[in-house]
Amino acid sequence: MKADETNAAQLLAERCAEAMWNGDEASRKLGMKIISVGEGCSIVTMPVRKDMLNGHQTIHGGIIFTLADSAFAFACNSRNSTSYAMSCGIDFIRPAFLGDMLTARAEEQSLTRSSGYYEVAVTNQDNKIVAHFHGRSHTRGEPLIEHQDQK
Amino acid sequence: MKADETNAAQLLAERCAEAMWNGDEASRKLGMKIISVGEGCSIVTMPVRKDMLNGHQTIHGGIIFTLADSAFAFACNSRNSTSYAMSCGIDFIRPAFLGDMLTARAEEQSLTRSSGYYEVAVTNQDNKIVAHFHGRSHTRGEPLIEHQDQK
Amino acid sequence: MKADETNAAQLLAERCAEAMWNGDEASRKLGMKIISVGEGCSIVTMPVRKDMLNGHQTIHGGIIFTLADSAFAFACNSRNSTSYAMSCGIDFIRPAFLGDMLTARAEEQSLTRSSGYYEVAVTNQDNKIVAHFHGRSHTRGEPLIEHQDQK
Amino acid sequence: MKADETNAAQLLAERCAEAMWNGDEASRKLGMKIISVGEGCSIVTMPVRKDMLNGHQTIHGGIIFTLADSAFAFACNSRNSTSYAMSCGIDFIRPAFLGDMLTARAEEQSLTRSSGYYEVAVTNQDNKIVAHFHGRSHTRGEPLIEHQDQK
Repeated sequence: MKADETNAAQLLAERCAEAMWNGDEASRKLGMKIISVGEGCSIVTMPVRKDMLNGHQTIHGGIIFTLADSAFAFACNSRNSTSYAMSCGIDFIRPAFLGDMLTARAEEQSLTRSSGYYEVAVTNQDNKIVAHFHGRSHTRGEPLIEHQDQK
Repeated sequence: MKADETNAAQLLAERCAEAMWNGDEASRKLGMKIISVGEGCSIVTMPVRKDMLNGHQTIHGGIIFTLADSAFAFACNSRNSTSYAMSCGIDFIRPAFLGDMLTARAEEQSLTRSSGYYEVAVTNQDNKIVAHFHGRSHTRGEPLIEHQDQK
Repeated sequence: MKADETNAAQLLAERCAEAMWNGDEASRKLGMKIISVGEGCSIVTMPVRKDMLNGHQTIHGGIIFTLADSAFAFACNSRNSTSYAMSCGIDFIRPAFLGDMLTARAEEQSLTRSSGYYEVAVTNQDNKIVAHFHGRSHTRGEPLIEHQDQK
Repeated sequence: MKADETNAAQLLAERCAEAMWNGDEASRKLGMKIISVGEGCSIVTMPVRKDMLNGHQTIHGGIIFTLADSAFAFACNSRNSTSYAMSCGIDFIRPAFLGDMLTARAEEQSLTRSSGYYEVAVTNQDNKIVAHFHGRSHTRGEPLIEHQDQK
C-alpha cells in the first residue's frame, strides 16, 4: 500500500474502534483500555480486580476470555465491515491474580470474503503468557460506520 | 449406586458448589444463580443487563462464555477434587439481548483420572440455543473442601 | 412432521449420503462404513489398522478426527444443502489400538439458516469414549443432489 | 543458550523425530515428509492424492488435520519428553485440490511443566493458508528415546 492508503486504513480502524467502544459498556465496566488498534489488529489491557475472582481466588477464566474477545472484536471490525464472533477457543496456560495487569494482543491470521481468523495472546505484567485465544469471525459486508468512501 | 451413595454424592456436590460460590465474586456480581448442582452437572442462570452489552448492542460473547464457564466449574468440581479449566471452546449460535434470561446446563461427558470433558448448552428464556460451550478440565486430586470421608 | 414427511426426510438423507460416499475415496480407503444416516445425524464405523498407527503405536489422532469428520459431513449434508466444515475441535480421552473397532455418532445440536453445530462421540468396541469432536458447518444453500422437490 | 547447548537441543530434536517417524506408519503412508525439526518446531509436507479426496472432491478435512497433527507431534516431542495431544482445533480457510502440495509449520507458543501449546499453519504451494490448527499437549515426563544425558 502507498503511504496515503496506509494512513487511511489506520484512521478507519481507529474510527471503527471508537464506534465499537462507545457502545461497549461491558468492556468499559471491566476497566479495559484500548492501547492501540490497526488494520486487523489491536492491543487491549485490563487490570485484575477483586470482582473478577472465582472460587479458586484467581481471575475467572470467563473474564480472561472477555478481554481476548474484545481485542478480537476491535481487530475484526477494523475494516468497517460489521463482523461477529462465530467460534472461539481458549487455552489457559497460567493463572492471573488480584492486582495483575493483563494485555491482549490480537493479530489477524487470515481473511476471506466472509470470514476471518484471529489469534490473541493474553500476557501478564511480566510478559508471561496467561492464555491463548483464537476466534473465527463472520461478516455479511455491512459497514459499521459511515465514512467518506461510502458517501 | 445405592440410594445412600447417590444421596452422599449429591450432598457433596452441593457443599462443593457452596464453597466455590462463596469465593466466586465474579459470578455473583454478574447476577448468576445456581439453580441446581449434582455429580458432574449444574444449571446456572444469568439475566442480560445493560452493563453486559457490547458494541453491537447484544450481550458480549465473553459474558456468555463466563456464564457457561461457571456452570462448567461447578460441574467439574462437584466430586471434591479441585479442577481447573485447561481448554475451552464456544460456538455462538444466536445473539441475546438486554432483558433476556440465560440458562447454562453443564453435563459431564467423560471423566478420567486427571481430566474431564463437559458440554454446556446456553439457552434463552424461549429455550432457544444461544451458544454451545465445551470444556476440558484438569485435576491434581487435591480436595476442594474437608468432608467426613477424608477425616 | 407427518409420517410422509419423516419418510421423505429419511430418504433424502440416505440419497445425500450415498452421493457423498461415492465421491469420498478418503473415507472408503480408511475402511469406514456408514451404519445409518438420518436428518442431521449419522453413525459411521472404522477398524484400527496397522497403517493408521503413529509413533506411540496408537491410532494417529488425525485418523480419529477423520472418522468423526466424515460422520459430521454425512450429518450436515443430510438435508441436501451443500455444507462445509468451518471450525472443528477434538478432545482425545483415551487411545485406541490396532484391531479396535471405532464408532462415530454425529448429532446435530443447532441449525440456523447458514450454519449448523454438531457433536460427534467416538467410542471403541467396549463403548468407551475415545474422543469428543464438535464441528461448525457453513452452507450457501446449493443442493447437493437433484431430487423431485427441486424439479 | 551457548552454541553447544543449541547444537545438542537440535540433535536431540532430530533423534526424537526419527524415532517417532520410524513408528509412524500413518504419516508415512500419507506421503508426508519431515522437512525440518527443531526444539518445539517442525515443518512437514504432504501432497494431495486422489485417495485423500472427499465427497466435495477436495481434500478431506481430516487429512489436513492429520498433516497438522503430525507436525504438532514432532514439535511437542522434540525435547525427549513423551507428549500426547489432549485437545486440538482446526479452522478451515480454503480448500485444497488434487495435486496440491501442502506444508504444515508447527511452532511452540507456550510450555509449562506438564503441558504445551502449539500453533500450526497449513499452506499450499502458493503459500496461501489452507487451515489454522492449534494443539494442547500433555506430558508425564517419560523420555521418548535413550540419550547420553540420561545414561
